[in-house]
Formats: sequence, structure tokens, C-alpha cells
Amino acid sequence: MSTPNQSANATTWFTEQHARSGSSFGLRIKEKLHAEQTPFQSIEIFDTTDWGALMVIDGCTMVSTRDNFLYHEMMSHPALFTHARAKRVVIIGGGDCGTLREVLKHEEVEHAVQVEIDERVTRLAEKYFPELCASNNDPRAELLFIDGIQYMAEAEPESIDLIIVDSTDPVGPAEGLFGAAFYATCHKALRPTGILVQQSESPLVHLDLIKAMRAAMRFADFTAVKTLTFPQPIYPSGWWSCTMARKGADLSGFRERGAATKQFETRYYNVDMHKAALASPEFMREALGD
Amino acid sequence: MSTPNQSANATTWFTEQHARSGSSFGLRIKEKLHAEQTPFQSIEIFDTTDWGALMVIDGCTMVSTRDNFLYHEMMSHPALFTHARAKRVVIIGGGDCGTLREVLKHEEVEHAVQVEIDERVTRLAEKYFPELCASNNDPRAELLFIDGIQYMAEAEPESIDLIIVDSTDPVGPAEGLFGAAFYATCHKALRPTGILVQQSESPLVHLDLIKAMRAAMRFADFTAVKTLTFPQPIYPSGWWSCTMARKGADLSGFRERGAATKQFETRYYNVDMHKAALASPEFMREALGD
Repeated sequence: MSTPNQSANATTWFTEQHARSGSSFGLRIKEKLHAEQTPFQSIEIFDTTDWGALMVIDGCTMVSTRDNFLYHEMMSHPALFTHARAKRVVIIGGGDCGTLREVLKHEEVEHAVQVEIDERVTRLAEKYFPELCASNNDPRAELLFIDGIQYMAEAEPESIDLIIVDSTDPVGPAEGLFGAAFYATCHKALRPTGILVQQSESPLVHLDLIKAMRAAMRFADFTAVKTLTFPQPIYPSGWWSCTMARKGADLSGFRERGAATKQFETRYYNVDMHKAALASPEFMREALGD
Repeated sequence: MSTPNQSANATTWFTEQHARSGSSFGLRIKEKLHAEQTPFQSIEIFDTTDWGALMVIDGCTMVSTRDNFLYHEMMSHPALFTHARAKRVVIIGGGDCGTLREVLKHEEVEHAVQVEIDERVTRLAEKYFPELCASNNDPRAELLFIDGIQYMAEAEPESIDLIIVDSTDPVGPAEGLFGAAFYATCHKALRPTGILVQQSESPLVHLDLIKAMRAAMRFADFTAVKTLTFPQPIYPSGWWSCTMARKGADLSGFRERGAATKQFETRYYNVDMHKAALASPEFMREALGD
């Protein structure tokens, strides 16, 4: 069932060693399909034995064919079913286009802009994760390859219903996406009752980061903040979270009827899983008061 | 943040390569504290940099100081708060004593037997995981070091309220714990409305095993079957499950009031997390009809 205490063989496994948590996660690979250094980061694509394609950015596992549905569904549907009617959506990052695809499953969305700084992420996703890019040609979709921080700073005030920050970890190009200055631009750009949702790392490993993000969101004048959890095998600890912040309205409840009668398919998300993601384990409740 | 594409260094990381799922999980270690071959299996103990002590059995990560609360709480409290009043509890396996400790937090429990085949697991837990063994001297506790399959086969009919199967994976000594013959002995030994709960591996990786277990439980005449999910970083995929089966009663609902007013501390479990664990993602609902 397992091979005890052996080094991962570099020719057959890709392993991310996550220094901060002292844990590693690896996938067995058939071959490396691609590697390049873009102006922003290094990107590698592997073909794995059991997880389909794997995209690695700066040494961190980002997307696998097998388990990305967990992350992409939970980054989009809870926020979209919390908002009464999100017509205009902005995705910051999200270059693999999986979040965009989920967002566009919602009929009420009239326009969804994906603002990815590194065009190569999207071009490689189109080649190696074509299913995630299935909605890239939807007439409601707009793909921009510019800096998301600048985009939000220049966004028209009160023009957006939902901002989804689907970024890499808070180091490198994504660092500026985890602070009060960025959140203030989001707050300004959101319409009243608008929602910001951001991937917020592991509840077990990054609780201090989640705490800091939530404080920064409140500092940027968001009225309500809520952290949701869900499994995500290829990310450190296998347990992940997103944090929602709302402008001028609370975050209690969601459109249960809408979620229960949704006209599109999901593999993880449903009304019960939405509620499950809202539940807080005791240690999070104590740490976050949530 | 991570070291891309490098072999784990055998002197500083312990890595379990899980062949079935083509994934691996590792922890950075300070030193190996102990290693032995018992009549049943190999046991290793490591001191990790960020996860406390780590017990490894036959090359598989079993328990870490940092994350075992997730597993131990979810193997015990949902079942105990589902049963109206579980007085007599049997734990099959569970040699690290963490499940026993959680069980004995319940005042209604009058007698809890831990039936672990390998005494060395418990002796090493006493040394390296003393907090998990805190209730070993509780007058209600009984520790036996015999074969759990034989114990259940010889158990007095209708004498037990709750059986918790806290075993290793269904290979090696634990294989016989995952079949209809064993479940039939459990069914016979349970009192009316008694509950069997068993760790049932990863929802993402072992869905076929979960399906087979559930079918075998029904074949053994259990009336209701329900699979609960929860995070467990050190096990393959980081997402784990337990499956409950009940004799002569259904599994809808639990003693919410009792759980809400419990007089003991937990770090993960609470009423909301109990409900969250009962929720089924779409793909599980489709596969299991749950």
C-alpha cells in the first residue's frame, strides 16, 4: 500500500515541500509535459498517473484535473448564491479559467471579467485543461491579462457585484492581494451589498493569515466577514478555505431555493455542502469568533 | 515557500507514497525516535518539526500530535450523540487510545473496552502520545490486547451499544474488519438500536471501498447506513470518512441538545460540524445514494 520512508524519486513523483507547515504533498507522474519561465513565474505541467494533468507554479501545485472541482465550485457558488443577483463579476487571478467556467453557469451573470496577470497560465490551461476553459468563448466572458491590483484601483466605483480573488499564495505576484489597501479598492468598486471572496489558505496551517485577512477586510470597511472550509487534496494539509466579505449587508443565509433548483451540474456543491462549508470547527470559532 | 521537484530527503522527511491513489504525503522530521517490528507490523515513531510526534505503521502515517483530534473526535462524538444513551462501548483497534479518551468524555458511557491486537501500539502511544492515553486509567476503561475479530465473534449477543472500528487500512491485520462476516458478528453483539461506526478511508480515493463496506453492512442486516466526512491531513488525499451503521433504527438526526450543551471540550466537533459531516457532496450522493 505504501513504500515506507523512501525518498520520492524525482523521475516519477512531483513533490511540493511546504516549508511553512513542514508537510509535503506529491503526485506520481508519467511525464513532464511542459516547463517555462514567464516574466512572472515558472510554470510546469505534468501528466500524473491518477490525477490527470497537474499545473505547478513556482514549485507549488496549483491545479489537477482530478480535484480542481472542489476549489472552483467553492470559490464561486457559495458567493453567487449568497448575492441576490450578481450581474457583474470580476475574477482576479484564476488564469486556469475554472472559476470563470463555474461563474458563467449562473444565468444571472451578465458579464464576467477574468483579470490574470500572466497570460501563459491561461494559454497552458487551454492546452492541458481544456475542460476548464470550456466557457472562455461565452459572450459574457472577458479575459484580460493585466495586473489585478491596478485593475481594481482603476475600477469604476460601485460597478461590480462580486469580486473573486483566485490567486496563488501570498508571496510573489499575489502578495499585494492580501492587504487592506487592495481590499479598500475592492470595497469602493463593489455595488451596495456586493461581495468579495478570496481563497484563504489552510484552516489548520494558516490560521494567522486568515485572521489577518479578516482584520484587513474589516479595516477596509466591509460589514460582514465569513470563512468557509472545504477539502482540497493537492494544497498543503488537504484542507482549504475561502473568506467572504460583504459591503453594507450581512452574510447570514443564502438563496437556498435557488441553490436547490439550480439548472447546472456540480460535483461537490449543493445546498447541504454550502451549509457544511459555513460551519466552523471549535478551534476556528475560538480563534476567529466566527 | 516550497522546493520544486526535488526528492524528499530521507534524512529530514518521512514520506508515505500511497500507491493506490498515486499521491504522497510527507512530514519534515527532526529525528526518528523509535522503530520496531512487532509480531503484527512495523512501528516507527518520529519527532516532526511542525506536527509533534508521528506514528507510522507498516509505512503508513497513523497518528500525529497536531491533527489527530480531527479523526478521534469524528470517530466518537457523532455516533455517541446519535445513540440515545450508549452505556457499553467497544473499540476495535484504536491502540493509540485517542478514541478511547474521546469516548470516556461521555458520562453516559459506563464501560469502554479497547480491543487492540498489538499491545506495542498502546505502549508506544503511552510514551510518545501521553495526552491520548490520559483516560487509560479511568475505572470505566478496559484495555485488551487480543484479536478484535475473535472478540466480536465471541461477544455476548445484544450486549453492546456502540462498536467503533478504529483500524488501519484494509490490508494486513485489519483486512478482516471490512467484510460482511465481521459485520454480522457486530450486528449480533449490538443491542437493539445499537450503532457500528468504522473509519472508511478517503471519499475521493476510496469511493469503491466505501460502497463495498456499505453493501456489506446492509448484507449483515444493518437497517441504516450513513457516511460522514471530515478533513484528516496526514491520511491520503487529506479528506477522510467514517461510516455508521445502525441496528433496527434509522440514522436521521442526533441529540443536538446534548451536543450543544456537552460538558467537555472538543477542538473540531460541535453541533454545526456534526451536521456538516452528515452532508454529502454531489458526487457521493450520486455514487452512494446518500
